[in-house]
Amino acid sequence: MEQEYTAEIFGEFAGEAAALSIQDVGILDAEMPAIVDAPAKPRAARRGREARRTARQKINAVTTPYFVRGIAPLEILNEEALAIIEANAERLLQEVGIEVRDYPRAKELFRDAGCDVQGDRVRFPLGLARMLCKTAPNQYTQHARNPARNCEIGGKNTVFAPVYGSPFVHDFDNGRRYGTMEDFQNFVKLAYLSPAMHHSGGTVCEPVDVPVNKRHLDMVYAHMALSDKPFMGSVTSAERAIDTVEMCKILFGAETLQSQTVCTSLVNANSPLVWDGTMLGVADVYASNNQACIMSPFIMGGAMSPVTIAGTLTQVLAEVLAGVAFTQLVRPGAPVIFGAFVATLSMQSGAPTFGTPEGANAIYGAAQLARRLNLPFRTGGSLCASKRPDAQAAYESMATLLPTVQAGANFVLHSAGWMEGGLASSYEKFVMDCDQLGAMQKLAAGVDMSESGQAMDAFTQVGPGGHFLGCDHTQANFETAFCRAELHDSNSVEQWEAEGALDMPARANIKWKKMLAEYEAPTLDPAIDEALCAFIAQRKSEMPDASY
Amino acid sequence: MEQEYTAEIFGEFAGEAAALSIQDVGILDAEMPAIVDAPAKPRAARRGREARRTARQKINAVTTPYFVRGIAPLEILNEEALAIIEANAERLLQEVGIEVRDYPRAKELFRDAGCDVQGDRVRFPLGLARMLCKTAPNQYTQHARNPARNCEIGGKNTVFAPVYGSPFVHDFDNGRRYGTMEDFQNFVKLAYLSPAMHHSGGTVCEPVDVPVNKRHLDMVYAHMALSDKPFMGSVTSAERAIDTVEMCKILFGAETLQSQTVCTSLVNANSPLVWDGTMLGVADVYASNNQACIMSPFIMGGAMSPVTIAGTLTQVLAEVLAGVAFTQLVRPGAPVIFGAFVATLSMQSGAPTFGTPEGANAIYGAAQLARRLNLPFRTGGSLCASKRPDAQAAYESMATLLPTVQAGANFVLHSAGWMEGGLASSYEKFVMDCDQLGAMQKLAAGVDMSESGQAMDAFTQVGPGGHFLGCDHTQANFETAFCRAELHDSNSVEQWEAEGALDMPARANIKWKKMLAEYEAPTLDPAIDEALCAFIAQRKSEMPDASY
Repeated sequence: MEQEYTAEIFGEFAGEAAALSIQDVGILDAEMPAIVDAPAKPRAARRGREARRTARQKINAVTTPYFVRGIAPLEILNEEALAIIEANAERLLQEVGIEVRDYPRAKELFRDAGCDVQGDRVRFPLGLARMLCKTAPNQYTQHARNPARNCEIGGKNTVFAPVYGSPFVHDFDNGRRYGTMEDFQNFVKLAYLSPAMHHSGGTVCEPVDVPVNKRHLDMVYAHMALSDKPFMGSVTSAERAIDTVEMCKILFGAETLQSQTVCTSLVNANSPLVWDGTMLGVADVYASNNQACIMSPFIMGGAMSPVTIAGTLTQVLAEVLAGVAFTQLVRPGAPVIFGAFVATLSMQSGAPTFGTPEGANAIYGAAQLARRLNLPFRTGGSLCASKRPDAQAAYESMATLLPTVQAGANFVLHSAGWMEGGLASSYEKFVMDCDQLGAMQKLAAGVDMSESGQAMDAFTQVGPGGHFLGCDHTQANFETAFCRAELHDSNSVEQWEAEGALDMPARANIKWKKMLAEYEAPTLDPAIDEALCAFIAQRKSEMPDASY
Repeated sequence: MEQEYTAEIFGEFAGEAAALSIQDVGILDAEMPAIVDAPAKPRAARRGREARRTARQKINAVTTPYFVRGIAPLEILNEEALAIIEANAERLLQEVGIEVRDYPRAKELFRDAGCDVQGDRVRFPLGLARMLCKTAPNQYTQHARNPARNCEIGGKNTVFAPVYGSPFVHDFDNGRRYGTMEDFQNFVKLAYLSPAMHHSGGTVCEPVDVPVNKRHLDMVYAHMALSDKPFMGSVTSAERAIDTVEMCKILFGAETLQSQTVCTSLVNANSPLVWDGTMLGVADVYASNNQACIMSPFIMGGAMSPVTIAGTLTQVLAEVLAGVAFTQLVRPGAPVIFGAFVATLSMQSGAPTFGTPEGANAIYGAAQLARRLNLPFRTGGSLCASKRPDAQAAYESMATLLPTVQAGANFVLHSAGWMEGGLASSYEKFVMDCDQLGAMQKLAAGVDMSESGQAMDAFTQVGPGGHFLGCDHTQANFETAFCRAELHDSNSVEQWEAEGALDMPARANIKWKKMLAEYEAPTLDPAIDEALCAFIAQRKSEMPDASY
């Protein structure tokens, strides 16, 4: 085949040839160890390669407890559109109102604050809900038992947390099945071991082998004992939220909780326009104990909200305003997050869909509304409807995750492991998604415009027709220059085939098993551990035997 | 399992249950046919479903010849950063200069325009190259033989074109192999049949079964005969560019070409900072015939440019300024596109990498530089390094395609089918990517803020705790409300398994074969067809027998 300059020339010398050209230009392994990993090497060299791999993994590790975005948030709504949505949300709160179910105390608080309460319907005078939200902090620290893991939630910061709430788990060895406590622990361990994952999350899967009335104790304990990253509390009832708070007091000290937030928990609205007693009861417990709640509409657009994004955003804002106002009536200044989970519904089959353009627009728009309320914001993740970690899963996940980061989300639930519309936590997808989280952190840093970033000296040294591999500037910067994603195989097809022709999920399968095999728990003060276990045993003994 | 409001409640009623709830609320098939596709139906109902499916596909079809972005372009560089890069690019052109190889006429044109020419090195006085670019139009129409397919390239418009330049093809039936003329024709047909694909492209794969000196004739003919969408010309030599122009004259009429642009062709720089005789010769032919060139640095960052994005963008700008200046010296006003293809190189293995955050930043940044030059812009696509259309391919493709659209690219080569770092055109990935192109077009439309978009009447009708499926607003809007991507399966796992548990590439395999089976060529005037074939036969007879 003729050498064609004309085609994207690249086709002609990708992979091998590119590696060859590095060899050709005389950069020796000894001089520039991490740049060149030649395919065939004697044993000693291979040992050297192992050492370099270790060093490389160190470089790869994103070890910050959250990251600070250097890029501006992407905004899709102009001032006029935002004003319309805000005015419409106020109208909703005033004219249609919010339904408050099975929680008289909430209705009392709202009535005392000036709302019109008729039966369960609570209507807000214009501007009241927004005014009540003003006491909420625009940023807060969630403390971890390892202070190096404390995360700042709000502002330009982003925190990634794992998949939440799936009744099923999936991996390539055992297929799809109900989640167990062992699975739960495994996901906590994987989150602990993933450098780009900042948070241990909450219900990383449902451990259905533990009775539902006792499950929360084991779940919270797993987060506390198997990880030292920040975590979420139980929200299935006020009683279980109290158990969480009690366990936090044991772990962090009883007084600490009054001044420090150590727990961020997920409180979903019953969209459209309903807050129910379970959720309000839970929010009441956490807010009154100075712990954070994510007040979060959970919407399948077209069924639980109108079939348009502007309409859905209006509803999101109204529901959040009411929910956040409630937390501030409980305890002014309690930390709280503006949450928004919006899937779209297939109008053909009734199935929820993910990674759609409408979903992305809901993410961008809700983030803008949250910033105007001066509240931390939760949305998005690596969402998909696919039943397997295939191309559909990845297209949809990236089409959600990238907008999530660009929107300026502060807290990202479901950032790894979500599959099948949230019905299954996937082991393979968990580690695959984590690679993307590392990339997002680099993307959010923006472009380095320092003198070194400008690299003008490299041009002087290299000149037209040369190459930059061996120049001083490259030597000084190559280690941190480009993002490295371990599960992305960029080698030639020949090398990929020689290594078994594994597709990405197959490589992910090897990785998560290796991670779990090498897992070591972070040390926990034995006295605290003992106290936690005693509390759990005591509480379990007070509960009926089983309630599945 | 207890009904938990607490977990993302969604997990509890995705798929089936959501569909059930649609049934429950009493929306009948007859009333709202396209909303409900119940899983189990008698025969007659199934026929009705077929009819609905046909209707639905019609709705799905994106039939515009290009699309107009409603969202503002995403900008990652501020004014100061842009000014630094522009000043650095001018310094490069002035101090280091561009090498012009094997094309004396280009050196003469540059010298006459005021450049300092020493041997092959051409240095530009400050501002000269930018000044020369001013005669290039900021937008042009590329005419197609079907005027309904004419596309506007520039401004707020985006045009999607297929993968370009792969020597190999891949599909799941025959695996990876060298491309043939039959493959080439198949990709032209698939592009023709894909509603979201606006352009027929150029070297959709290399047809290596045709001698390389004659291949271009068959390739250009395939675009002309098998599709009526706009296409690209041959760029492997000036002689072959002339053949393309002659064939265009037969198809469109000889005089037409002086007033209309009917061809947009890819002209790559030999980065760093070299323009060679082949490429300049081709640009010379097209520009002097009023046909468009994409003057495009083709860079593997770290090898062919510095290992930083600011440095790489500086080089991109310098190379484009020189290349575009050349076209304007050939014919002031000739249509030309600012091109930028930037992959990053793995500093560990030497392999090119795609879908990286650095690649995205290069896309955003180059688009800003192009807008400041007031030129149409080409970048991005659905790029990946994966050897198969798996999750890696999809993560990387979406992490390139979304930035491409957000950056405001006007012409997107490689928007579907690119696999293995450009070494292989994939049949399955082609149709999978096309689904994403449809979604991007919807994303770029932005949020509908009309009265219907605001949907306030829906809230009045539905109220707290209700559902929106049957309300008037949904009835009026459901058909066009949400993006529909045919290959994305959002059904329940039970239904997916009942349909064969096919992952996305398996579904794609079925789809492209069905498309090719149903393909019908657009009519072509037999006299024109005859003239084209006569020209090709004549040209081939003048060439040596084979030159592989």
